[in-house]
Amino acid sequence: MKKKTSKPAKIAASPALIEDLVAASRILANEGVLDGYGHISARSDQRPDHFIMSRSRAPALVTAADLMQLNPESEPLPGDERKGFIERYIHGEIYRTRPDVMAVVHSHSPSVIPFGVTRTKLRPVSHMGGFLWSGAPVWDIRKVREENDLLVRDRPLGKALAGALGSASCVLMRGHGVTVVGSSIQEAVFRAIYTEMNARVQLQSTLLEGQSSSSATTKRAPSMRQTAARWSGRGSCGARRSNS
Amino acid sequence: MKKKTSKPAKIAASPALIEDLVAASRILANEGVLDGYGHISARSDQRPDHFIMSRSRAPALVTAADLMQLNPESEPLPGDERKGFIERYIHGEIYRTRPDVMAVVHSHSPSVIPFGVTRTKLRPVSHMGGFLWSGAPVWDIRKVREENDLLVRDRPLGKALAGALGSASCVLMRGHGVTVVGSSIQEAVFRAIYTEMNARVQLQSTLLEGQSSSSATTKRAPSMRQTAARWSGRGSCGARRSNS
Amino acid sequence: MKKKTSKPAKIAASPALIEDLVAASRILANEGVLDGYGHISARSDQRPDHFIMSRSRAPALVTAADLMQLNPESEPLPGDERKGFIERYIHGEIYRTRPDVMAVVHSHSPSVIPFGVTRTKLRPVSHMGGFLWSGAPVWDIRKVREENDLLVRDRPLGKALAGALGSASCVLMRGHGVTVVGSSIQEAVFRAIYTEMNARVQLQSTLLEGQSSSSATTKRAPSMRQTAARWSGRGSCGARRSNS
Amino acid sequence: MKKKTSKPAKIAASPALIEDLVAASRILANEGVLDGYGHISARSDQRPDHFIMSRSRAPALVTAADLMQLNPESEPLPGDERKGFIERYIHGEIYRTRPDVMAVVHSHSPSVIPFGVTRTKLRPVSHMGGFLWSGAPVWDIRKVREENDLLVRDRPLGKALAGALGSASCVLMRGHGVTVVGSSIQEAVFRAIYTEMNARVQLQSTLLEGQSSSSATTKRAPSMRQTAARWSGRGSCGARRSNS
Repeated sequence: MKKKTSKPAKIAASPALIEDLVAASRILANEGVLDGYGHISARSDQRPDHFIMSRSRAPALVTAADLMQLNPESEPLPGDERKGFIERYIHGEIYRTRPDVMAVVHSHSPSVIPFGVTRTKLRPVSHMGGFLWSGAPVWDIRKVREENDLLVRDRPLGKALAGALGSASCVLMRGHGVTVVGSSIQEAVFRAIYTEMNARVQLQSTLLEGQSSSSATTKRAPSMRQTAARWSGRGSCGARRSNS
Repeated sequence: MKKKTSKPAKIAASPALIEDLVAASRILANEGVLDGYGHISARSDQRPDHFIMSRSRAPALVTAADLMQLNPESEPLPGDERKGFIERYIHGEIYRTRPDVMAVVHSHSPSVIPFGVTRTKLRPVSHMGGFLWSGAPVWDIRKVREENDLLVRDRPLGKALAGALGSASCVLMRGHGVTVVGSSIQEAVFRAIYTEMNARVQLQSTLLEGQSSSSATTKRAPSMRQTAARWSGRGSCGARRSNS
Repeated sequence: MKKKTSKPAKIAASPALIEDLVAASRILANEGVLDGYGHISARSDQRPDHFIMSRSRAPALVTAADLMQLNPESEPLPGDERKGFIERYIHGEIYRTRPDVMAVVHSHSPSVIPFGVTRTKLRPVSHMGGFLWSGAPVWDIRKVREENDLLVRDRPLGKALAGALGSASCVLMRGHGVTVVGSSIQEAVFRAIYTEMNARVQLQSTLLEGQSSSSATTKRAPSMRQTAARWSGRGSCGARRSNS
Repeated sequence: MKKKTSKPAKIAASPALIEDLVAASRILANEGVLDGYGHISARSDQRPDHFIMSRSRAPALVTAADLMQLNPESEPLPGDERKGFIERYIHGEIYRTRPDVMAVVHSHSPSVIPFGVTRTKLRPVSHMGGFLWSGAPVWDIRKVREENDLLVRDRPLGKALAGALGSASCVLMRGHGVTVVGSSIQEAVFRAIYTEMNARVQLQSTLLEGQSSSSATTKRAPSMRQTAARWSGRGSCGARRSNS
């Protein structure tokens, strides 16, 4: 018997956004970008100062019923008693600072973490990582708050992270992970997957001779309208949209 | 409700070719050679100046209904309004230049990309990669067109790539991926899989001492008549031929 | 026809502990921490000087019916004729020495083994590995018994290993594997998974420049109450608890 | 409609051996030791100068109906018109030379190949690889036959390989793969899996400092009676024996 938990009858999001967000969470888990933790959110398409995000749950298990509506302070609607992710302030403060951002992925993307604990810069080595030309700054929480557990637990920390992101597509978090943004759920999923892939390729390239410099790729990235459809064929996504 | 899209009633290809091509697309996705993007095509066995290739779709999801017939200019038949892959010109220009080529795979094969952004040459380290004795040239799109997004978007770029391929079995594309050819769908699948495997082994060999030189393997490669049958047992291929 | 093997009618453990322990074994197999060997145990929640552990069986196959109750000498109850794991003495001696430990995982965690055969110390490079601040000592069985097969086959060897663990969260075993402890099944699963992940990231970081020193992470680790629920969504766990 | 191919009504092997051999083929494919190629055989338990091996087929697809009985010359029984593996001479010549060998695995085990194209010796770094204390010689086909395609296509090449194996547990084949032997199907499966694992760990250890020397492990390896049962829980094995 499950414990009944109060939640609002409806969240301010279109059925398409809900379906895409659930699929995105499962796709990112399936691709190994999200592990048992990590999360993706989307700006509400009905109330743009709010955003939609799962309650605290394994990304591979997220369903539409798990989604919560969070206000500009990253807090749930009155009456929604479910436990949200502690790090939801990452999302809220980025949405506040970056009106162009429609979706945010925070992950422990495994191949990216080494670039957050060394001096080597993550940089595009493939056209799929072309968005990294925006830069991939490394944020060090210690510069903001000496006493910390590396988690972005409140608005001031979220604001500092958003500041470090600036106008880039992703920001690395020292000894923790990475946060990637996009102008759509599809683009955020695409970038999260190819940030991981680009990092892995860059790591491997260090084994070879004469690694090419910053001119490795052009600055124009392919357009990514169909990303979720691309990835939904890989693995057991419980919810997905038709891609015809 | 799906939007009805016009397509021709029939494409110029035998049922066997269609079945093999669909299985090949899924096999290559399953083996990690194709990610959400990338594509395989086959020269038509009924109209050899045309070739068969999926509409723009995730390789893991391709079905017979997604296949399109493309003419020598890499354009769809009149009345086929479906969106093809932008990079179909890779395929068309190779079929034009190389009458011996019956199938083409273009991928972002992850372990191969490092060899396209460094000076280290991809070379055969195992007999399964023996076809790499043909050479594995690296093509740099910038030499052809300074303003580019690394995609082969038109016939002139496709022609330049086909020129770089020459008589080899594969051509690396700097900061992008690789294109592999074969005298059959089976051989192209085999070569695409073992180009990836050979690259991974070569990368790992750099960690050891006294890596052997170009004499690593003999120049004769095993014959590969049953390749698709070999791989179809691995993973969830929706369409495959009996291999008895 | 299966051979009937005697076992006790009931073991001293709550249904919740049994369910969690079975799920944990399968989760750890699914995550690649346990291979065909390795094991997880839990201190009995009904008789704290005893512990619960599978009979000798592949971790991916463990069911509630495979669990055995072992006494403080790591021996089965009278009448239980099933074959236990040889290395159950690892568990028993740690429970004896460390009253705070409620669960123990012994594995051949693949990325951890290199740190047991070199001089490089495993150290936290991500907040998920923050528990490694407790240290990750390497135990060398040869210091205790010159004639050995690297297995902890009896109580004296188990006691020596427990001594090497001290108050840490994990102890590496030279040329063998690692043993990880936790204050709950959930925490032990979490730590086993992130010891592997942390080791992999640390290995990869050696390829980059200017690897950061021991200040890589803070000493506070995230709390891990929901670990099993987090991981149960990944893969084919035959037994799991609802996580609502 | 399948083409009817003649085969003998019965092969000289017990039901248990047949079941284990089929499971072993699928387990080794599932564990990534066998790719689309490679094979495992077992000495007949009814006619010890003969051995049992699949017809030429993907290891992941092998069923009991695919098994062939091969004579001391590695040739099929009269009337069996099915196509065998070209490299069956590896197996036949080892069975002839090594009466203690009951099963043989030939694979392109990916992490092992680097040790066949460099001067670094594969050596035990974990107790699971303790059998490598027998040595892991590298066989170079060129020393026997200058004109070759790296395949062991006939009895003389098989005999030369068996000579290089000597009394060891495995023999590497330069630029090709590895052949592993065991005193049972279970032991051969165990050794094939841990040769791959040991190679991977040794490769990774090169990234760390002060890799320990040949004293990495003791010379006694664990006994492996239950190996197939251990692995059968991992992945989709179509045929397996109960392990109770």
